Amino acid sequence: MVLIIVGLGLSDEKDITIKGLEEVKNADFVYLEAYTAVLGVGPPKLEEFFGKKIIEADRTFVEQGSDEMLERALSSNVAFLVVGDPFCATTHADLYLRARKKNVTVRVVHNASIMNAIGSCGLQLYRFGETVSIPFFEESWRPDSFYMKIKKNKEAGFHTLCLLDIKTKEQSVENMMRGRQIYEPPRFMSVEAAVRQLLEVEDKLGGKVCPRDAKAFGLARIGAPSQQITSGTLEELLSVDFGPPLHSLVICAPTLHEMEREFFELFSGKSAAKV
Amino acid sequence: MVLIIVGLGLSDEKDITIKGLEEVKNADFVYLEAYTAVLGVGPPKLEEFFGKKIIEADRTFVEQGSDEMLERALSSNVAFLVVGDPFCATTHADLYLRARKKNVTVRVVHNASIMNAIGSCGLQLYRFGETVSIPFFEESWRPDSFYMKIKKNKEAGFHTLCLLDIKTKEQSVENMMRGRQIYEPPRFMSVEAAVRQLLEVEDKLGGKVCPRDAKAFGLARIGAPSQQITSGTLEELLSVDFGPPLHSLVICAPTLHEMEREFFELFSGKSAAKV
Repeated sequence: MVLIIVGLGLSDEKDITIKGLEEVKNADFVYLEAYTAVLGVGPPKLEEFFGKKIIEADRTFVEQGSDEMLERALSSNVAFLVVGDPFCATTHADLYLRARKKNVTVRVVHNASIMNAIGSCGLQLYRFGETVSIPFFEESWRPDSFYMKIKKNKEAGFHTLCLLDIKTKEQSVENMMRGRQIYEPPRFMSVEAAVRQLLEVEDKLGGKVCPRDAKAFGLARIGAPSQQITSGTLEELLSVDFGPPLHSLVICAPTLHEMEREFFELFSGKSAAKV
Repeated sequence: MVLIIVGLGLSDEKDITIKGLEEVKNADFVYLEAYTAVLGVGPPKLEEFFGKKIIEADRTFVEQGSDEMLERALSSNVAFLVVGDPFCATTHADLYLRARKKNVTVRVVHNASIMNAIGSCGLQLYRFGETVSIPFFEESWRPDSFYMKIKKNKEAGFHTLCLLDIKTKEQSVENMMRGRQIYEPPRFMSVEAAVRQLLEVEDKLGGKVCPRDAKAFGLARIGAPSQQITSGTLEELLSVDFGPPLHSLVICAPTLHEMEREFFELFSGKSAAKV
């Protein structure tokens, strides 16, 4: 009789809250959304830990086919699990609205997301401006709207969190045209790839928004034991190995507060600090 | 041999993550920071649920006296519990730095904080600009720097999260001068009080940043079963009863995206929607 959207947090099965776990155990159906973001563990691990069968919801499901789930939530308890916090992705906000319109009771269990955990690099969270997404450039599709947003943030004295692209369950054009349900291996943008794209746009537009000596933080696997945070210029970050996904990038405001400078030094790539 | 800073999340004892709870149970000493923010439940409830004695850390402790805690973390496992996420308050970032300087190993367990859970009003999280704090006005101390920050955000097309003042363990001037350890009852700023202060500054500065017809969301007890979200003009929010603390306020960007408009309607004070 309720749809509970449960945030799973950042990294593994133990990042769920006690409240969230109780909701999952109490649910008649458990769905997992795993295409806008991914945990460091897969559905089987979650199934084992939760003691529940999990129905995987991909993009098509969430954007088109979630009516079945909403119908079920009218007569049973449905848990919809999302990586991070329920309201970090536009698609989940949309799901919330659709549920309410169908008179489904909706509850939310919050959790950490990269939008607040990014504070672990030591930059003050309240000084972040608009968050940008950096998509994988393709041969003939190289959108650069993130560049003007970073520019606007810098001019206002704000840091910028850059979310790096994730491709899960993508089809090749050929497979799509032939109607084959064959998917490409998942791809996750690395800090290095993101920096290369930023520098390419900088070279093209020349606005000195992301020059090679701009200060930045690269972050990987935030919340996991293998978490890595390294600061440096964009040039310096190009040669840092951040290891497996997920990666994020922060472009610093033009000036850092004193404590922020201390964190920048602490995490400097020169000392290869891992925390 | 480690300091673990554990985020408790937003509302009660069950908002801790499984990972966080394991760290607490494994700790030799458990400290609780409860002056920059508070949960909806007190330390006794946490002690009962965690099965651990809790040492309460007030402002003096964190800013001056935490050396004892850091010393302990060199030879035992210390858990330092904070409301929300560990990196949402500057004082915790400072503690992290001081620990690292003393060669204390530090780990962090993330959780939800108002900085990301504010997304539950339906405004897109990536469109928020700088977060502002609104302090209680006193007779001769009425700082209004938040006003120019909201102005800057609005000009850039961003929403503004306003964190509302909390006074815990404050001494009256008389008690402070006489050295009496007597504290005033805690005070929590309401949405109504915040809006009154905003309107006062608007009347004084006249920048049309927070006029009476500006769109806003009032939020109370986010993450709790009694959570309340109500949208309206500032004028309308003045007459909404948001109940017990904690309250937050969001000033909307000048234009709302389509889905944001739907949420604004859904939570409109006219229908007194509670979610």
